[in-house]
Amino acid sequence: MSDCEEFNLALHQHEPTPADVETSIARLDRIAAQAAGLGAQLLLVPEASLTGYNLPLASAQSVAIERDSAHTERLCHVCQQHNIALAYGYIERDQHHLYNAVNVIDAAGNSIAHYRKTHLWGGLDRSLFEAGERFGPVVELHGWKLGLLICYDIEFPESARHLALQGAELILAPTALMAPWTYVADLLTRVRAVENQLYFAYANYCGSEGDLAYVGRSCIVGPDAEFLARADTRPVLLQATLHKQVIKRMRTDMPYLRDRRPELYGALA
Amino acid sequence: MSDCEEFNLALHQHEPTPADVETSIARLDRIAAQAAGLGAQLLLVPEASLTGYNLPLASAQSVAIERDSAHTERLCHVCQQHNIALAYGYIERDQHHLYNAVNVIDAAGNSIAHYRKTHLWGGLDRSLFEAGERFGPVVELHGWKLGLLICYDIEFPESARHLALQGAELILAPTALMAPWTYVADLLTRVRAVENQLYFAYANYCGSEGDLAYVGRSCIVGPDAEFLARADTRPVLLQATLHKQVIKRMRTDMPYLRDRRPELYGALA
Repeated sequence: MSDCEEFNLALHQHEPTPADVETSIARLDRIAAQAAGLGAQLLLVPEASLTGYNLPLASAQSVAIERDSAHTERLCHVCQQHNIALAYGYIERDQHHLYNAVNVIDAAGNSIAHYRKTHLWGGLDRSLFEAGERFGPVVELHGWKLGLLICYDIEFPESARHLALQGAELILAPTALMAPWTYVADLLTRVRAVENQLYFAYANYCGSEGDLAYVGRSCIVGPDAEFLARADTRPVLLQATLHKQVIKRMRTDMPYLRDRRPELYGALA
Repeated sequence: MSDCEEFNLALHQHEPTPADVETSIARLDRIAAQAAGLGAQLLLVPEASLTGYNLPLASAQSVAIERDSAHTERLCHVCQQHNIALAYGYIERDQHHLYNAVNVIDAAGNSIAHYRKTHLWGGLDRSLFEAGERFGPVVELHGWKLGLLICYDIEFPESARHLALQGAELILAPTALMAPWTYVADLLTRVRAVENQLYFAYANYCGSEGDLAYVGRSCIVGPDAEFLARADTRPVLLQATLHKQVIKRMRTDMPYLRDRRPELYGALA
């Protein structure tokens, strides 16, 4: 087993802790220890897990965190202490704007990737956030190329395709998926993985937050559309080992990325 | 019930009749009568159903049909006689080239749409066919906007998206899906429908043809990702009534086509 051939991924599904960053950091510390104990190299948690998501504007403004803050510093220490990378969603403040963001910190405590949700969902997202103006970079961790999306982003096939074309082998997608939209967790996750022949991890909440009833159903899906790990509606730590050879096999057997006809896709852009 | 609000669609899954156009036309005549008896406004059959699909090159060249041929004329009469439109796949000859094509004839006996497969699959397609150089037009039938794709095309999210952006409300996809690729019939069909919020009909073969074992599983899927009708591995005539109001409801509740960010999708084209 080379460092690059396998990737050990953990995903925690939990209830939201709206506007309670202290509780959220304490939980992340506890789960990071548990995930590291399973050998995980990265832990993924839901959309805005650090701050809460479904908040009134005043509360969101009050709990929002700058990209480099004392809270971020504490999460860097969590990563270093447990020797695990962390991908977490949070409400980001930048000047007078709020963004729905995800940050990735590696096990050395360095922020290696950051992304602001580009596809805002309905009245809730639009009442709180500015939309991100670009997809995030594909970054390398333990020899694996990672891309980031958030919740509604994945419902647009263009988003995951963009990352696949940049070389992504694993897409991390924190989410806050509520009833009745279960097809997103049950179907779209699998199809985003198989049509791009990469691994796809979708970390959702369970429980509720204000008037939103979350559906759980977090999952880690392989490039062959199979669930490697899947939650029901309860808090749970999922873990899966990803294999580069499955990506290679799928891309050889059914070479989607090679067989595209980009010259015909002008209407999409 | 207005002429436009509903559309009555039939789909026939059958075994291939390789290089036997006479048998195929006789079967189409029989099935068209049966579908019309159910009130169907259009009958869809598999990829290259008229000519056979998995043929040696010499056989494909010999059985290939020009776009306007005596065979086409006979199918126009079938449509007129039974008062039903027909969408069928066939191997098309144009000068010295073969194409994997689909033709749509309306109940008045007029060819209203024609499309040549743009995404060629593996060695088989490439040994026989030239690739089509454009997506087909979206055409109107009984107030419904129809788009055409063939088999491998649907495995690329760009194809159905292109048609949705041209206004398609129903995509007709003849196919020849073989083992082990069942995820295409079980998952991709549903996701193409729901991510574009349109109806999707996927007409496959059952049985075998040469060294190919077809998987059946033809289906008609709604804009909410639900199967309206679904075959197993036996010959069957499926029928479903499509409703414009389901498209409208889905597009209102989750406005994917409006919420796209085309300015971010440049890498796809």
